[in-house]
Amino acid sequence: MRKQTTATIITIGDELLIGQIIDTNSAWIAQQLSAIGVTVAKRVAIGDTAEAIRAALDQEAASADLILLTGGLGPTADDVTKPTLCDYFGGQLVVDEGVLTHIKGIMSRWGRPFLERNLKQAEVPDVCRVIHNSIGSAPGMWFEKEGTVYVSMPGVPFEMKQMMTDILLPEFSHRFAGQAIVHDHIFTIGEGESFVAERIKDIEAQLPSYIGLAYLPSPYMVKLRLSASGNDAAVLRSEVQAFGDAIADRIRNIVVARTDEALEVLVGGKLKELGLSIGLAESCTGGYIGHLITQVKGSSAYFKGSIVTYATEAKINLLHMDPGFIKEHGVVSEAVAAAMATAAASALHSDIGLGITGILSDGDYEDQSAVGTVFVAVSRGTKILSQRFQLRYDRIQNKHTAAQMALHMIWKLLQEGDAA
Amino acid sequence: MRKQTTATIITIGDELLIGQIIDTNSAWIAQQLSAIGVTVAKRVAIGDTAEAIRAALDQEAASADLILLTGGLGPTADDVTKPTLCDYFGGQLVVDEGVLTHIKGIMSRWGRPFLERNLKQAEVPDVCRVIHNSIGSAPGMWFEKEGTVYVSMPGVPFEMKQMMTDILLPEFSHRFAGQAIVHDHIFTIGEGESFVAERIKDIEAQLPSYIGLAYLPSPYMVKLRLSASGNDAAVLRSEVQAFGDAIADRIRNIVVARTDEALEVLVGGKLKELGLSIGLAESCTGGYIGHLITQVKGSSAYFKGSIVTYATEAKINLLHMDPGFIKEHGVVSEAVAAAMATAAASALHSDIGLGITGILSDGDYEDQSAVGTVFVAVSRGTKILSQRFQLRYDRIQNKHTAAQMALHMIWKLLQEGDAA
Repeated sequence: MRKQTTATIITIGDELLIGQIIDTNSAWIAQQLSAIGVTVAKRVAIGDTAEAIRAALDQEAASADLILLTGGLGPTADDVTKPTLCDYFGGQLVVDEGVLTHIKGIMSRWGRPFLERNLKQAEVPDVCRVIHNSIGSAPGMWFEKEGTVYVSMPGVPFEMKQMMTDILLPEFSHRFAGQAIVHDHIFTIGEGESFVAERIKDIEAQLPSYIGLAYLPSPYMVKLRLSASGNDAAVLRSEVQAFGDAIADRIRNIVVARTDEALEVLVGGKLKELGLSIGLAESCTGGYIGHLITQVKGSSAYFKGSIVTYATEAKINLLHMDPGFIKEHGVVSEAVAAAMATAAASALHSDIGLGITGILSDGDYEDQSAVGTVFVAVSRGTKILSQRFQLRYDRIQNKHTAAQMALHMIWKLLQEGDAA
Repeated sequence: MRKQTTATIITIGDELLIGQIIDTNSAWIAQQLSAIGVTVAKRVAIGDTAEAIRAALDQEAASADLILLTGGLGPTADDVTKPTLCDYFGGQLVVDEGVLTHIKGIMSRWGRPFLERNLKQAEVPDVCRVIHNSIGSAPGMWFEKEGTVYVSMPGVPFEMKQMMTDILLPEFSHRFAGQAIVHDHIFTIGEGESFVAERIKDIEAQLPSYIGLAYLPSPYMVKLRLSASGNDAAVLRSEVQAFGDAIADRIRNIVVARTDEALEVLVGGKLKELGLSIGLAESCTGGYIGHLITQVKGSSAYFKGSIVTYATEAKINLLHMDPGFIKEHGVVSEAVAAAMATAAASALHSDIGLGITGILSDGDYEDQSAVGTVFVAVSRGTKILSQRFQLRYDRIQNKHTAAQMALHMIWKLLQEGDAA
């Protein structure tokens, strides 16, 4: 049986410990490693001090085959990762001519003078292998000690990602080809995690010990994930999928998809497949649904635009809605959501229209409806689906949930169109 | 000298190790602890296994006075935190009548049956103090052992936040009142971190050892943070601020604000102060700028809406732009951005208009401009500011940077208005 490679991700930076930034690097690295069969057993965030870095390395080396570090490689005095690693692995800092030439090239391309501190960035420990940073000035460093591989990368997300994608992941997957890790996803909307678990408890009880089932709940949604690791990826995959199929069949009324992809990706794929376009009229979400849809590359093929009518007068001017109609039904109402959907499709010349209106937090709106009330309507020609949601959380979470529900309504409408 | 309280945050969940979710809880907790003078020295993420939890507790107890755990408290079989902690602290699980009544109340309010697995949620170790979860079913747990405090909280962000805000933070700040931690921020836009560091290196060299200076770079921006801890908050604050003032004065041409607040918060505050409203015409950002502006509570006071014209035809229909004009200048051009800004202000009846057009990634647009080209224009009456940006990164990062540059242009326009 092949050995399972275990990795630890260490992120370095005081900004992580005072909450100044959210660590998105670790999640991305974890995804990539998981995809090539490397198990991330632990993630650690520490501050910019030599002591913290040394202590974390000592602690993690005991259990990890691969230790990835990000951060602390900048040109300023608060960045201590490089000298600390150099010292830890018993090396000397020397100027690397390749890195030096690369940095000079960047500076000249950006029309910037070459500073003495940039020379420092070209220094690397003489006991490491330099990993080329094609889009930035801080090189990566590869160390090995007592069978453990240590790679230090810059903390700037796009520099780290490029380095991982171009150089490190291909090497890791060659070197650490371990047991296969297989996941199967069931994306559900409509029931709480307790109820989903209750409905499938007999199937869960039959799972062999090497297949795990995890529940990832968020408002209105539960994502189920089956995971297994073993030697034969094909066998594992078919076994995991059979259990996934059994679960998905049992709870088919709430299954959205057999994937972990975001709703905007699913909706975008379906619109493309059906050759349909979409236009939005957003109120309480303020443009967030348009933002999510346009996060997907190629969305210009189906996304016409969004008319964000935060103010009621904008609904009247831009969506040509009758003030009397709005007054009669209230701006937060099913009738207004439906009218917004058809007005969006008409104004944006799209096949599908979406309208959303609601109140996400206290004192935010000149309407009398209860906080958390949101109406969503989707239209295709004269067909309209609409629904009321009562959200229970804070403003930011309510906005996110409202957008998810809106995308789900589009998804449902597209499924029906499919069946017709 | 008062003792400095050191905390470790341990987040539990396999989803963190395969990158299925981004850990936003840790950043929030770190912010809150930092604000009450508790130093977060380390953050650790581990999987849902008893061994990993026990190992992390053993490891962290050696150095931390306070250990906060989140996650793994759900009602499903993959959640092992509660039995593991119970065992670790040598207790027995017993039903807590208060928790039981609370869960039954939630279920009945939500019109859900009470399941046997919900009874399990009412069980707590008899060696812990129960921390009330006012908006969810999983209670928090407070343990103490050999002078270290351990608190386990649910991983659902809004449940955890409520528990921290209502109960834990007031207690922590009473119990762990340690040294004051003081930060001072300088938010700059326009120069790279090396250049900023170079301009202030003599001031940096004069900083006493108990004041640290950190650089947090992102495209076009560098946030500088001075940090100090000590006994007398007032003295520290004035000292740190004096250095902050000296730095901000030296680099005043690039200083946006003396705060770590987001640009949408700064812009919103200024619009409110000046009694001005804003309307947007967004193309490549797809609604993201409207989304950011409406993340701020109370934004309905100044945000009228956004016309997201992703398709060129929408620019013609909704912004009443002349097809010949668009063709002459190209859809990605300074002229079109400026026309979008004034059209947005006119269509949305706002004092300020913003227009943004650009190409964020390959094959996304029917224009011939180089990928990464973005034009932003802001208008107030007949006054227009416009600027071209050449972004160098991937689609998601470019969208984020473009939105930041747009918010910065609004900020600049509002500053000029101020001076007039």
